[in-house]
Amino acid sequence: MDKKENGKLLHATRVRKPGRPGRGERESSKLRVIPLGGVNEIGKNMTVLEYGHDIIVIDCGLSFPDEDMLGIDLVIPDITYLEERRDKIRGILLTHGHEDHIGAMPYVLRSINPPVYGTKLTLGILKNKLREFKLPWEPNLICVSAGDTIKLGVFTVEFIRVNHSIADACCLAITTPRGVVIHSGDFKLDTSPYDGEMMDLTRLGELGRKGVLLLMCDSTNAERPGYTPSESKVGKSLEYIFTVNNDKRIIIATFSSNVHRVKQIIDISARRGRKVAITGRSMLNIVGAATELGYMNIPPGVLIDISEIKRYSPEQLTLITTGTQGEPMSALYRMAFSDHNQVTLGPGDLVVLSSSAIPGNEKLIGRVINELCRNGVKVLHDSIFEVHVSGHACQEELKLIQALVKPKYFMPVHGEYRHLYANRELALSLGMDSANIFIPELGRVLEIGSRGAALTETVQAGKVLVDGNSVGDIGNIVLRDRRHLAQDGLVVVVASIDPDERLLLSGPDIVSRGFVYVRESDELMEQLREVATNALFAGINTRGKIDNVSLKGRVRDDISKFLYAKTKRRPMVLPVIMYI
Amino acid sequence: MDKKENGKLLHATRVRKPGRPGRGERESSKLRVIPLGGVNEIGKNMTVLEYGHDIIVIDCGLSFPDEDMLGIDLVIPDITYLEERRDKIRGILLTHGHEDHIGAMPYVLRSINPPVYGTKLTLGILKNKLREFKLPWEPNLICVSAGDTIKLGVFTVEFIRVNHSIADACCLAITTPRGVVIHSGDFKLDTSPYDGEMMDLTRLGELGRKGVLLLMCDSTNAERPGYTPSESKVGKSLEYIFTVNNDKRIIIATFSSNVHRVKQIIDISARRGRKVAITGRSMLNIVGAATELGYMNIPPGVLIDISEIKRYSPEQLTLITTGTQGEPMSALYRMAFSDHNQVTLGPGDLVVLSSSAIPGNEKLIGRVINELCRNGVKVLHDSIFEVHVSGHACQEELKLIQALVKPKYFMPVHGEYRHLYANRELALSLGMDSANIFIPELGRVLEIGSRGAALTETVQAGKVLVDGNSVGDIGNIVLRDRRHLAQDGLVVVVASIDPDERLLLSGPDIVSRGFVYVRESDELMEQLREVATNALFAGINTRGKIDNVSLKGRVRDDISKFLYAKTKRRPMVLPVIMYI
Repeated sequence: MDKKENGKLLHATRVRKPGRPGRGERESSKLRVIPLGGVNEIGKNMTVLEYGHDIIVIDCGLSFPDEDMLGIDLVIPDITYLEERRDKIRGILLTHGHEDHIGAMPYVLRSINPPVYGTKLTLGILKNKLREFKLPWEPNLICVSAGDTIKLGVFTVEFIRVNHSIADACCLAITTPRGVVIHSGDFKLDTSPYDGEMMDLTRLGELGRKGVLLLMCDSTNAERPGYTPSESKVGKSLEYIFTVNNDKRIIIATFSSNVHRVKQIIDISARRGRKVAITGRSMLNIVGAATELGYMNIPPGVLIDISEIKRYSPEQLTLITTGTQGEPMSALYRMAFSDHNQVTLGPGDLVVLSSSAIPGNEKLIGRVINELCRNGVKVLHDSIFEVHVSGHACQEELKLIQALVKPKYFMPVHGEYRHLYANRELALSLGMDSANIFIPELGRVLEIGSRGAALTETVQAGKVLVDGNSVGDIGNIVLRDRRHLAQDGLVVVVASIDPDERLLLSGPDIVSRGFVYVRESDELMEQLREVATNALFAGINTRGKIDNVSLKGRVRDDISKFLYAKTKRRPMVLPVIMYI
Repeated sequence: MDKKENGKLLHATRVRKPGRPGRGERESSKLRVIPLGGVNEIGKNMTVLEYGHDIIVIDCGLSFPDEDMLGIDLVIPDITYLEERRDKIRGILLTHGHEDHIGAMPYVLRSINPPVYGTKLTLGILKNKLREFKLPWEPNLICVSAGDTIKLGVFTVEFIRVNHSIADACCLAITTPRGVVIHSGDFKLDTSPYDGEMMDLTRLGELGRKGVLLLMCDSTNAERPGYTPSESKVGKSLEYIFTVNNDKRIIIATFSSNVHRVKQIIDISARRGRKVAITGRSMLNIVGAATELGYMNIPPGVLIDISEIKRYSPEQLTLITTGTQGEPMSALYRMAFSDHNQVTLGPGDLVVLSSSAIPGNEKLIGRVINELCRNGVKVLHDSIFEVHVSGHACQEELKLIQALVKPKYFMPVHGEYRHLYANRELALSLGMDSANIFIPELGRVLEIGSRGAALTETVQAGKVLVDGNSVGDIGNIVLRDRRHLAQDGLVVVVASIDPDERLLLSGPDIVSRGFVYVRESDELMEQLREVATNALFAGINTRGKIDNVSLKGRVRDDISKFLYAKTKRRPMVLPVIMYI
């Protein structure tokens, strides 16, 4: 029996007040924990908690395509599981405002529209993003603060402050009918954070004392020994750099979302009487949002527009810019390659890359550094000076959290398998029973019931590729073809035949792209035409009806064989035969 | 006036005994130093020294394609300059046996055939390589030892021992009519090398005391402060690893050319009573060559064939393998992905990556590490344990060499611009005059005469791309097309028309690859056919003769516009129109 409510079809049996399962249900139900992203990969973080008729979702991020996903813009989680249970979803909880935690929201909100909870900065950044997308409905964004507790069906969610490379980041303590689940989000422990508070270890300790069922913990830096240095360490390095380069204009590229880093740079500049100009779209956006929301109390008169920099001498100026990953459209890239309409760099300039390379971007970044050096610009980056610190906890911090929380079950999340595995090793080193540690897989359900916990079924989960404005229509076949085309290019063979008279009316014409430089390969092209003609004649003059598939197959095979013998390359061969 | 000699046409004026310029010539001639590779790039090292009628060439390496050189196998230097002066070339001098110093030899020896000088191991590795290539002539390989001096035209070349991550590496001191030129090759300073001698600092100091005209110096690590640790440090780490893992089978992946590293691993294993099996083609090749040539004195009974490992228990075995860069065909990759026919890895195994990632390979290596962890294998690599040291000198070593050699002129080589620039900064910090430091460019000639040194003309130089068995036929247009195809795929539109009757006889047929999954895009394909039909009709029904170029242009433009509006993608559109 179906009933219509708020324009959506709901199964009548499911229509009841959220959070109040029937009595029998309560006892038999299990807590289900389902990672839809962020495990065995970096990025697109998304975790589902399900109990009875209630679902909550933690984070909703994107990831960037692997190098073999040619032409793909970005990757988001497959949320089929949620779409099939949209009426059970009580809310999406965002731990912080990084792309790998909120970046899939514009796509996910096209098909589901539960309330979204996050802190002020997180939602501010999200709103900025959503502006560029048309959504079928107005999203329901609900602002919370660290320390707040919200009730979502059977779940009670507490936001707890953590340190990270973005302001206003939280971890979550979720009270479920089976016990308390803590999800660390991304975090580090910073005992001397800049312009913010230390992670709320006390609260985690309290929860640990009362008993925690499951800890899901960030594993990004689980292979790294020791502690991650404090954000203040970067401040000290920058102070030193400003002191010894007080005759230079200083250009600092950093991650725009690192509000504290940007604030530090502005404060140091202000103390030294420098004006600060900001360039790069995302930097302007986020500094704007952060200022508006009260995260950046900038001394008056310090910020100037980039168009005003001509009024000041170099040593009076600091520029803060995007482009830490060598992105060819970024402000720093354009400055390096003399393509920025306001800034021309030269020997009077110092560029600081206050950032680290995201794996895969090393060569792009190198290109920018080379070009800067070529222009006589002095460059400092994290491999020659401590101008960046990670936002993720290293081994000693991870152990500290585990020791405070003392969970019954442990699930390392956020990382490739090696990182999850390393985090598991840390738990083992603290004496945890290996049977209570679960290395997750995408879509694999961890069920926790009264008799214990186990990995059980696997639900639909995976990568959805976004290319242009289409989501999910690029699959393995399209990617395989792109890789083939990228490797050796393409040879198209076109001919018109009269199938009744068994005549070759026109062609074969040979068109190639990405294979050889045709103007210098007359002889090869002539030979190709000959091979194709022979194959066509042989195909036309068979007994019986001419079969298009086998005729094309013959042309393709003959050309491929000929080309491989001749060039040791295997271009894609595409025969097109017109029947007239 | 031309004269034929040895089957080649020579200008008569150039036919004379090598090495004896006429008297007038000697006074007016300048020493020309021409980098044909290895500057502003990593790899394909090649430097030309020219004086009067004599040319010598230092190294002849290859490099690996950038990520935007789709489908390219490898890159070699453009040697047009040498081909046009082949009769002046007195010899090619190889500093050591790495690919980036000898890898282009099989290609270069197809068009020039001067004598080739190198140490025993270098030539041994080269001979191995040349076996796979058909050359038009027998190469003339001449073996030298560190300390040897050879006379090549006006040049006298002394081979001087250096330390590097391959045995038998040398730098060169070349006495020219203008003074002594030192080319460092690749080097580091190892005061406690394994199984070899320390770099001959004394000889460099002697030359420095007498006066050195020009120092060309390795810049690879010029951004790194301090000293590069000794190879012995790796030995200490390995000893520790063997001690704490004495219950495990130990699999060590390393660079096959690092003969000393391989020897250390064998020696440590032998001392601990382990048998050593070697797997991976290049590892077997090089260990074979090194043993044969006397570079590896292996204790009897230690080496076993990989097929014999079943006879021993895990803790009695060490395997040495290739695959440090995560290469999908390598032995380690196959072991990780359970595709090696002799070795299956599991929880009883420890894999050590005694290597570092070549930039760009991080993700491939990560894939192997993840898979190993997934199989329960313990993995150690250089970012968590000191199991590798660089083969290149860091800043303090570079300064030491510069201070010993005290050259009049300095040219940093071997590195991207940032590295050359950093090496220049070191020279400046030692008090060198910036006017005497020359940052080189590919093909740019440094001329040193009696009145000083200057960068002058630029000769032909650059990258020659090798794809399959063709060398140099892939240019920018082909690569641009490959990138376009890789990004958004391809749409082919084929139609037959009767130009006289202005009829569309057949088509338009639409074929796409790498664009969308056609079976799920019926509607889009139907719309495409409509757009193409309209464009064709409009083109056919113009006044005057039908112009093929403008007809194709119209189809291409209309389809491109339609597709971009619809999908925000720009596939390559390829119209083929047959006239019947």
